[in-house]
Amino acid sequence: MSTTDALQESYQRYLNQLFDAKLLIPSGVKGVYGRSGTFENVIDQFEQYVTRQTRDMKPEVVRFPPVFNRQHYAQTDHIYNFPDLMGSVHSFMGREPEHAELLHKFQCCGDWAHDLDATEVMLAPAACYPLYPSATGTLPEGGRLVDLKSFVFRHEPSDDPARMQSFRMREFVRLGTPEQALAHRDFWLENAQRILKSIGLDVQPVVANDPFFGRGGRQMKATQRDQHLKFELVIPICSEEKPTAITSCNYHLDHFGSVFKINSADGAVAHTACMGFGLERICLALFKHHGLNISQWPESVRKLLDLS
Amino acid sequence: MSTTDALQESYQRYLNQLFDAKLLIPSGVKGVYGRSGTFENVIDQFEQYVTRQTRDMKPEVVRFPPVFNRQHYAQTDHIYNFPDLMGSVHSFMGREPEHAELLHKFQCCGDWAHDLDATEVMLAPAACYPLYPSATGTLPEGGRLVDLKSFVFRHEPSDDPARMQSFRMREFVRLGTPEQALAHRDFWLENAQRILKSIGLDVQPVVANDPFFGRGGRQMKATQRDQHLKFELVIPICSEEKPTAITSCNYHLDHFGSVFKINSADGAVAHTACMGFGLERICLALFKHHGLNISQWPESVRKLLDLS
Repeated sequence: MSTTDALQESYQRYLNQLFDAKLLIPSGVKGVYGRSGTFENVIDQFEQYVTRQTRDMKPEVVRFPPVFNRQHYAQTDHIYNFPDLMGSVHSFMGREPEHAELLHKFQCCGDWAHDLDATEVMLAPAACYPLYPSATGTLPEGGRLVDLKSFVFRHEPSDDPARMQSFRMREFVRLGTPEQALAHRDFWLENAQRILKSIGLDVQPVVANDPFFGRGGRQMKATQRDQHLKFELVIPICSEEKPTAITSCNYHLDHFGSVFKINSADGAVAHTACMGFGLERICLALFKHHGLNISQWPESVRKLLDLS
Repeated sequence: MSTTDALQESYQRYLNQLFDAKLLIPSGVKGVYGRSGTFENVIDQFEQYVTRQTRDMKPEVVRFPPVFNRQHYAQTDHIYNFPDLMGSVHSFMGREPEHAELLHKFQCCGDWAHDLDATEVMLAPAACYPLYPSATGTLPEGGRLVDLKSFVFRHEPSDDPARMQSFRMREFVRLGTPEQALAHRDFWLENAQRILKSIGLDVQPVVANDPFFGRGGRQMKATQRDQHLKFELVIPICSEEKPTAITSCNYHLDHFGSVFKINSADGAVAHTACMGFGLERICLALFKHHGLNISQWPESVRKLLDLS
């Protein structure tokens, strides 16, 4: 059996275990699942644990819906770098004659969706994307620290239960001077390890890169790695050889600051950094490492996550 | 000033108050807003209140992501009845030459999104839509009672702060015999009034209809009203004359049961009914009726919602 086949089999086996244990609910689409109350409660409790751990930092809490402004999307370089992952929202904007045409195509099993019109929104590819355009202007003295969470979309259908198309990301974002942004990234690289290790997830930090598209993307990946802009915390879920990133810590330099005209209090272009917990992946890692039955998880983990 | 102008002005005034109070954050798209921590906390606390009120019923908790299977969408009659509200998710599925074409169109400000391909998913138009296809088969004795929540999408850009394009719906759905479904709808029509009145929202029940599309839709609206299938609980938010539905109680007869082949334990086609709380609308109604400053809300409301 090839390595790819073995990996594929391992994905299917774990996915079926999750379905059998009624933790995830199949939808007929790869990477799109319902979540049971048990699964959701682990995510809720992990989130509350993180909230308790960050209370002293007094972050501003902001929550965005899963859709965001198409014009803001167009200002980022997502369409250049990750076109294959995008989610563009389309709808029917015609009147009755066009509706009749749409239904005709639909009934004849044609590509009925092709003639829909692009709406004003895209699906957010990361929880922090909608924040930057809302921060245009001058930051307060000391910059901003923002606590975000949202459903994000990445079109990458996969059998890997940890590679969902629609999942939640809890992020802490720093907007300020280069020093503040870099310190945030470095603090969270340590702090997220401490949090995850405390609940029995023995993560390893690795230098990482985003999945830039195409041949041109190779150079981007190399540059990102050389500059040590992105770190991930990884842990095996379905494979020891290919561990899964459950947290990502990124320093964006002045990228979002210049695109969305965000300045720090001293007038310079703001730098930004974000740390994101992949909530479904963390939940899947917990079930993988502690077992599918929460009542048998280590007492210390159950206590920290208030699961007793 | 015409009634329409007066209503429009009232929308804008309340929306600006919500922006000024930093409860909602503008995104540049009508009906798409960020939510502050204060706004979110009211929603969280209302949800926990509802959870406490329903604990004895022991509903199954299930949570679906904001996207759902396009094939399941095609099995419903949404494209016939509400085409103008749909959200169809499209992505780029080409290789490098097609990417170059996409970027060319994008850079020349063409309709770059038109050539994207439809993905396997649509945005869910209601929290309960993804549940029915997952329930195909025979229900357990006594049927099922399911507690759902998700972000739903309706493409209806509006200045009315209560008419969001992307918002959360908390639903309780009953699948079973006609008697069980109807009893669920009637129970919740009473129970939701009790819950909402207890937090100072003096809602009125009204017979309602869904916003069926086009001229053919007029007949559908009339039939739905005649059969008393849908009730809403309404309360003024921006207008006394046009109060806003903040809760909806619907009896679907055997519609979803026959489309998705769901049978009750006795082998008959299952009937279904759902009750949905519009979480953002309830939150907006609370701020409208009790004021933008939570510390000045009635003590009884603050106590029930644990906001002290």
